[in-house]
Amino acid sequence: MHRSRVSTLLIDAPAGDAPRAAAFWAGALGGEATPVPGEEQFTSLPHAVPGLVTAVQAVDDAPRYHLDFETDDLDAETDRLVALGAVEVGRWLDCRTLRVPGGHLVCVIPVHSDPEEFAAHARVWP
Amino acid sequence: MHRSRVSTLLIDAPAGDAPRAAAFWAGALGGEATPVPGEEQFTSLPHAVPGLVTAVQAVDDAPRYHLDFETDDLDAETDRLVALGAVEVGRWLDCRTLRVPGGHLVCVIPVHSDPEEFAAHARVWP
Repeated sequence: MHRSRVSTLLIDAPAGDAPRAAAFWAGALGGEATPVPGEEQFTSLPHAVPGLVTAVQAVDDAPRYHLDFETDDLDAETDRLVALGAVEVGRWLDCRTLRVPGGHLVCVIPVHSDPEEFAAHARVWP
Repeated sequence: MHRSRVSTLLIDAPAGDAPRAAAFWAGALGGEATPVPGEEQFTSLPHAVPGLVTAVQAVDDAPRYHLDFETDDLDAETDRLVALGAVEVGRWLDCRTLRVPGGHLVCVIPVHSDPEEFAAHARVWP
């Protein structure tokens, strides 16, 4: 038995455009764009979208959005999504990157939101 | 004065892959994939992501996610986002499609979620 939920919306922007993107999203959603200490590729947008951790990430790639599934069991959650047709295309630290049916990217990551929020909203998988 | 909020997460999939994508997301998020009567390009994923209307949309384009801003004033909200650097790139029915700084797509649409949810979560803009 393990648990997971969609926790995070990442707004991946080409590195050169990321500051402009972060400024736009802070204004558009009404909040502050906040650098993440020790993870300089991320600019957090706290409370921008209720219920979702939201951040701009600077990437060496085309602009895209992606979603993170947070989980208390990385292997079990990755296996669950692979059984549904996803394909693992990369690993970086504790993050597993999957290409899912239809062509979209998702990441599977350890629980990083508030534990009470995780407990309240995560689904339990057999 | 007008109001807006990010209301909707669209998982845009190439038309030929959309049924497979909808089946994946229903399984991944734990719910039913529900066709939307009269709008056959959409497959709804009710209650999949708390607080966000979530759907797979069949498109004639590469896979992507996009976000919708729902608003009680389409012109004012479009003008607000354009003033922040967005560029309007299309209109379809009541939907305005914008390319925003960083390169991502968003749509501005009339309020379509529960009016109480809109009232509770929308931001008020001067």
